[in-house]
Amino acid sequence: MSSTNPRIAVVPGSYDPVTLGHLDIIKRAAGLFDEVVVAVVNQSVRKSKAMFTIDERIGFIHDALAAEGIENVRAEPFYELVVSYARRIGATAIVKGLRQASDFEYEMQMGHLNRQQAAEIESIFVMASPKYAFLSSSWVKELARFDGKIDGLVPPPVAEALRERSAALREA
Amino acid sequence: MSSTNPRIAVVPGSYDPVTLGHLDIIKRAAGLFDEVVVAVVNQSVRKSKAMFTIDERIGFIHDALAAEGIENVRAEPFYELVVSYARRIGATAIVKGLRQASDFEYEMQMGHLNRQQAAEIESIFVMASPKYAFLSSSWVKELARFDGKIDGLVPPPVAEALRERSAALREA
Amino acid sequence: MSSTNPRIAVVPGSYDPVTLGHLDIIKRAAGLFDEVVVAVVNQSVRKSKAMFTIDERIGFIHDALAAEGIENVRAEPFYELVVSYARRIGATAIVKGLRQASDFEYEMQMGHLNRQQAAEIESIFVMASPKYAFLSSSWVKELARFDGKIDGLVPPPVAEALRERSAALREA
Amino acid sequence: MSSTNPRIAVVPGSYDPVTLGHLDIIKRAAGLFDEVVVAVVNQSVRKSKAMFTIDERIGFIHDALAAEGIENVRAEPFYELVVSYARRIGATAIVKGLRQASDFEYEMQMGHLNRQQAAEIESIFVMASPKYAFLSSSWVKELARFDGKIDGLVPPPVAEALRERSAALREA
Amino acid sequence: MSSTNPRIAVVPGSYDPVTLGHLDIIKRAAGLFDEVVVAVVNQSVRKSKAMFTIDERIGFIHDALAAEGIENVRAEPFYELVVSYARRIGATAIVKGLRQASDFEYEMQMGHLNRQQAAEIESIFVMASPKYAFLSSSWVKELARFDGKIDGLVPPPVAEALRERSAALREA
Amino acid sequence: MSSTNPRIAVVPGSYDPVTLGHLDIIKRAAGLFDEVVVAVVNQSVRKSKAMFTIDERIGFIHDALAAEGIENVRAEPFYELVVSYARRIGATAIVKGLRQASDFEYEMQMGHLNRQQAAEIESIFVMASPKYAFLSSSWVKELARFDGKIDGLVPPPVAEALRERSAALREA
Repeated sequence: MSSTNPRIAVVPGSYDPVTLGHLDIIKRAAGLFDEVVVAVVNQSVRKSKAMFTIDERIGFIHDALAAEGIENVRAEPFYELVVSYARRIGATAIVKGLRQASDFEYEMQMGHLNRQQAAEIESIFVMASPKYAFLSSSWVKELARFDGKIDGLVPPPVAEALRERSAALREA
Repeated sequence: MSSTNPRIAVVPGSYDPVTLGHLDIIKRAAGLFDEVVVAVVNQSVRKSKAMFTIDERIGFIHDALAAEGIENVRAEPFYELVVSYARRIGATAIVKGLRQASDFEYEMQMGHLNRQQAAEIESIFVMASPKYAFLSSSWVKELARFDGKIDGLVPPPVAEALRERSAALREA
Repeated sequence: MSSTNPRIAVVPGSYDPVTLGHLDIIKRAAGLFDEVVVAVVNQSVRKSKAMFTIDERIGFIHDALAAEGIENVRAEPFYELVVSYARRIGATAIVKGLRQASDFEYEMQMGHLNRQQAAEIESIFVMASPKYAFLSSSWVKELARFDGKIDGLVPPPVAEALRERSAALREA
Repeated sequence: MSSTNPRIAVVPGSYDPVTLGHLDIIKRAAGLFDEVVVAVVNQSVRKSKAMFTIDERIGFIHDALAAEGIENVRAEPFYELVVSYARRIGATAIVKGLRQASDFEYEMQMGHLNRQQAAEIESIFVMASPKYAFLSSSWVKELARFDGKIDGLVPPPVAEALRERSAALREA
Repeated sequence: MSSTNPRIAVVPGSYDPVTLGHLDIIKRAAGLFDEVVVAVVNQSVRKSKAMFTIDERIGFIHDALAAEGIENVRAEPFYELVVSYARRIGATAIVKGLRQASDFEYEMQMGHLNRQQAAEIESIFVMASPKYAFLSSSWVKELARFDGKIDGLVPPPVAEALRERSAALREA
Repeated sequence: MSSTNPRIAVVPGSYDPVTLGHLDIIKRAAGLFDEVVVAVVNQSVRKSKAMFTIDERIGFIHDALAAEGIENVRAEPFYELVVSYARRIGATAIVKGLRQASDFEYEMQMGHLNRQQAAEIESIFVMASPKYAFLSSSWVKELARFDGKIDGLVPPPVAEALRERSAALREA
């Protein structure tokens, strides 16, 4: 392959909010590619029932990357097919994390559809660390909603925001 | 990451013999890395009950790569832990193909063990084309043994060798 | 078994809209039974959030079958338990397509419940072609929504209708 | 372990309504622990789209346990994290039933999260009897909705209530 | 499809020995096809490490079918690819029973390979009754080996033979 | 249930050799029951191809338990059906650890068979810690064979013995 162009990978997701499991995958992608773009689905909060706005979600990712000194990764909003976005920014790979067999089947389906849309973009999968294998944004929000322990599951500023947002929702 | 060193990936296996499914994975790895080493387990034929010798298995791979004009891939024998081999040749990734959920669980186990051995070497997974999802060396040998159709499953010279070897075994 | 009555099978689904994967299964059923009834869930579009009306969905199926000259298959609306419908039209089997292990678990659950309702009606499963293993109506609608490639996934008139409907939805 | 305190287990769920599959698991838990608390999620019917109120759901469980003469089990409402509830009532274990591989992955995720919240509370899994492996509250409600056979799937008073409620919904 | 020829299905296996789970599947096949051939792998006992000879295994099946008055099924030895055998006897379908997700993945692989060998022969899958979902010839032999209860798992004459053979092996 | 008798659980396995994953499960069982018996399959080394003798395997377990001050657990050899052994020593439960979906299916099969043999003995499953989810005795022996890192996977004396045994095998 030509080595003159930087190799760019997309790591797509909702990131509502980013967890330490997501960051584990993003850092692995950063070790494999020259540039990594964390692509955050930019659906309206109302439609997607997201807890955080697109700007908040991107902000959490940038802060976490800065805190760890990771420089070849940036987060961007997108609202189109992942392959269209990847092609538009010159990426040649989509990176996803795998945790369990059920993840795998879903990701295989999506990966084959993406290949049918854009054969030149490869879907590659990396393994989350076992300690994050049980983690997802939905579970973390559920924990926060009932005032559970979320430290060690998300970056500290995200934990703080989750606690505030959840407390506000309980009072509403 | 430093971009001055070539990125090298290992694609390990028994390759007894190489199938078009293996070649599909190898070609995808070749598109993602500067150099790809197809690492062929060098266990004695007698112990591993292999149908082909290590030299035959490597020869089939080289011929198939040459026939397709793929230049950044070579095949080598190895007989040690995959991570030890990867580290010794300067590879930073191990690439495996995934077909089904049961593959996935096995590969996750092996991937986590490899990470425990050598955290700096990343295991990455790519998807076989759906048309090869049902394919394995064992099934191809089983088909050849009963004189089934194997064209379209393995490279033509491999098909030829399988037919000869299977006929010889039937006569023995 | 008595061979004087025609053997009838039901192939139930939402078919919103029919894909080439569905047609692959329907054609396999047509090869195994004398008559095949494609039973289309007749839930109101509003409740089911379907993209196409029951008449449109049935029309797409009839057109696709006619285009391929398949004569022992017809599509009918239904809105009751599949086993009640099957019994009412004299069918002795329900045919479903299997793609992945997660499909399998869902279909087993539904199959055992159906057997508990009507032991005389057998659930049988056939395999989709690997090239359709990743396909579903939901994914196709998602692709159409973002103006992705859907040719080769659904019959041509369905592709046309999906593009029109999706364009209308984007403008709304 | 200390044997002076009674060993208490929680068997949490929505139980909307309780099935013979749930009762099978509850009875197994009752054989393993001194006291078992069936913890019923107390979410508002409107939010959870439950068919039965919390009082109805608890009533069905109490009646079924009384009918079988099971004395070391009681049902209680809860609306907090399962581990918080377990800790509050002095339970040391959460018991869940397993039916299929997909159940298993979900329960593993939840079990690891619960362990992260409260390491002293063990999640343990028991097997449903094969004859209930296909059963769930959702399926039973679906059957009742279309006037299917539900005897042998739920306790008789639950079957009666399901038929009445479903008839009322059909008329509405 | 032409209805003048009888529809024939093959139900292949090792049947070492036949279990009530196998018979459940065979009877379902007998309800779906005009003729069913139970095809028993005729590998030498020594090579396959079978407990019973091909004649014993076929005899057990014939006796069990006779005891139940099933007339459109016969058992035959075979030693070739299942699809070659099916084609040779004019069968149009191969019927397999499914129990668990892992069965499913194996059967899908074999089914796709068979389709690649002979596209005109359809692989169809039926569900074992839940009460036999845990059953296999290997487990039954393991139980017999340690003098466990095998009644209700295999036909009575098979149970008798298993007990005799296992006792003989223990004394050897 | 009667609380006058001690509750005894069996944790069966080959333990060739015991890993930290096994010990994690054994300790969880020790927290749930009054007495735990680690039942070690006493098959001849030659037949089972075990690396360690039954006495060595039991010794490793005893030493590891003593090192952690666990007092309600002992290890014993057995060579019969697990349920027969459990019944003979007055145990009411068999405890197994679950790691992945494929484990689950195997354990469900064995659990249902055990229940068919002895309905009064319950099979219960606990979750291994995620950090041991990838671990098995076979993998550890494979690592040792190729002189890989095994510290942190097995107790220190087991690691020492594995290194010695593996070195001896390499020289042989």
